[in-house]
Amino acid sequence: MTRRRLDEFQRIARYFAPLAGKGALGLKDDVALIPGPVGEDYVVTADTIVENVHFFADDPPKEIAQKLLRVNLSDLAAKGAKPVGYLLSLALPPSRGEAWLGAFSRGLAEDQKRYRCALLGGDSVRIDGPTTLSVTAIGTVASGRAILRSGARVGDRLYVSGTIGDAALGLKVLKRELAALPARHRSFLVERYRLPQPRLELGRKLARIASAMMDISDGLVADLGHLCEASGVAAVVESAKLPLSDAAGGALTREPRLIEAILGGGDDYELLFTAPASAAIALRRYPVTAIGRIVAGKGVTVLDAAGKAIRFKRGGYTHF
Amino acid sequence: MTRRRLDEFQRIARYFAPLAGKGALGLKDDVALIPGPVGEDYVVTADTIVENVHFFADDPPKEIAQKLLRVNLSDLAAKGAKPVGYLLSLALPPSRGEAWLGAFSRGLAEDQKRYRCALLGGDSVRIDGPTTLSVTAIGTVASGRAILRSGARVGDRLYVSGTIGDAALGLKVLKRELAALPARHRSFLVERYRLPQPRLELGRKLARIASAMMDISDGLVADLGHLCEASGVAAVVESAKLPLSDAAGGALTREPRLIEAILGGGDDYELLFTAPASAAIALRRYPVTAIGRIVAGKGVTVLDAAGKAIRFKRGGYTHF
Repeated sequence: MTRRRLDEFQRIARYFAPLAGKGALGLKDDVALIPGPVGEDYVVTADTIVENVHFFADDPPKEIAQKLLRVNLSDLAAKGAKPVGYLLSLALPPSRGEAWLGAFSRGLAEDQKRYRCALLGGDSVRIDGPTTLSVTAIGTVASGRAILRSGARVGDRLYVSGTIGDAALGLKVLKRELAALPARHRSFLVERYRLPQPRLELGRKLARIASAMMDISDGLVADLGHLCEASGVAAVVESAKLPLSDAAGGALTREPRLIEAILGGGDDYELLFTAPASAAIALRRYPVTAIGRIVAGKGVTVLDAAGKAIRFKRGGYTHF
Repeated sequence: MTRRRLDEFQRIARYFAPLAGKGALGLKDDVALIPGPVGEDYVVTADTIVENVHFFADDPPKEIAQKLLRVNLSDLAAKGAKPVGYLLSLALPPSRGEAWLGAFSRGLAEDQKRYRCALLGGDSVRIDGPTTLSVTAIGTVASGRAILRSGARVGDRLYVSGTIGDAALGLKVLKRELAALPARHRSFLVERYRLPQPRLELGRKLARIASAMMDISDGLVADLGHLCEASGVAAVVESAKLPLSDAAGGALTREPRLIEAILGGGDDYELLFTAPASAAIALRRYPVTAIGRIVAGKGVTVLDAAGKAIRFKRGGYTHF
């Protein structure tokens, strides 16, 4: 979820990158690394979600809690880390009462069990405004083995886990822009938008194979752009190879212009990674799909089924 | 700054304490402890400040940045920890432009140098509402040597660092409730409210002596109550021994009812600690003042100069 629009990147580069210390990776990754107990590093990441920006005021509090925790766990997954715990900062308007808090904490309790982590601390303050929720998540990885964004090399193949574009289409369903889809597809897509599935186990396995990895939170094209920039390479994506769910595939067949949302929309929280060509066979056992390759140069090129470059109006979801 | 009013404590106990993991200290301290590199523990703490609750919209951005960082560093100081770095989560309304961000980041840069820590990562998102700022700070302490709230024992003496009540009176100055004070006293008190001085060096020295320690963020009486509860003891404070600045002393002489603000108001960010009576001589070299003692029982009693118990309407600043 970190660092959405270009302006935000420019702001970070200008005002905050000069403040970055050892382990901050120049603020170019979504995590920091600090030395842990013998043989381990800690991976630390922080994400904030805000009512009316990242979730709707009347979303079920349990899902808000789980989304908050999972977008952070997804950043750990993308480094190959194992979650340890998290700090939770709540800025709550007086309208969020006991029932809301009860459901919110039950959502966290379920996910703590699911993802094997626990609450470590935090803060709770009042806000006269939108509910604003921050998590700082901490995980461990073998020393020096975190997979960064900066490790992609020319000749590497490009992969994604799961299916791409579901969350962006789910948001369109909520905005009533995809009313023609079957109800079961609509609810599948909404679920994918509301509840990310951090690929923790897969991330840990891929950490032994991948050369660079990140999660897709801002949209495939935008996030791949960040990975390329951090690695000093370019990428070519073959859109015909994109793994689509039945729901997304069906929607795209009806409305070909949805390819823009699929490639550019955010919130999938799948893993995007690169690996040397020699890893192709080892990767066959995992739910991942080769979608392109790393080449020399700058930027991201997306090819259509005929091998022709597709142009985009926007590179991903923008905040402002 | 964490956990202000009684309700907030009840909420934390009910909804969040059951989620607490190893190192979370049952959410009864302001920090968590996780194992660090050989011989060290990490002390981790998170605090959030919100526009119109913890600072004014037109406060200088440099001071807002420094307050945000320092309230977190104060929590590290109170455990005897040395700062390493921090993660910063910004929820900014579109009205916070380049000039604001520039001054904000300069404030952080100055304090990073002053307190020897660096930015590790974070997040930056849009909010349609009040500016909401979170920091998660990380420090190190020798393994097992963090000073907790829970270590006070019957017979220990009770101490504070610096002077008490300045920040609460500074807030009253800003609210134009202390207009009769001399201008230099007014500006001293406002400065104490706006810019906490985390007692990092002192905290590290006291860590070898203190039995329990915390910073005073919610007010002396309220925070001492938390320390007593965590330690299973009671405390007696002799108000005549309270260390007061010239400005606070002068204000109190004019208006004796200000004793309530001095004992109950928040934001001093001085250290409150207990130590065995045998440490009294060793403590003479530090800018600390003995203000009372730890006794058996529950709760906090404050005695006036005649040794009579003072009653309070409120135990500290309340959020809601």
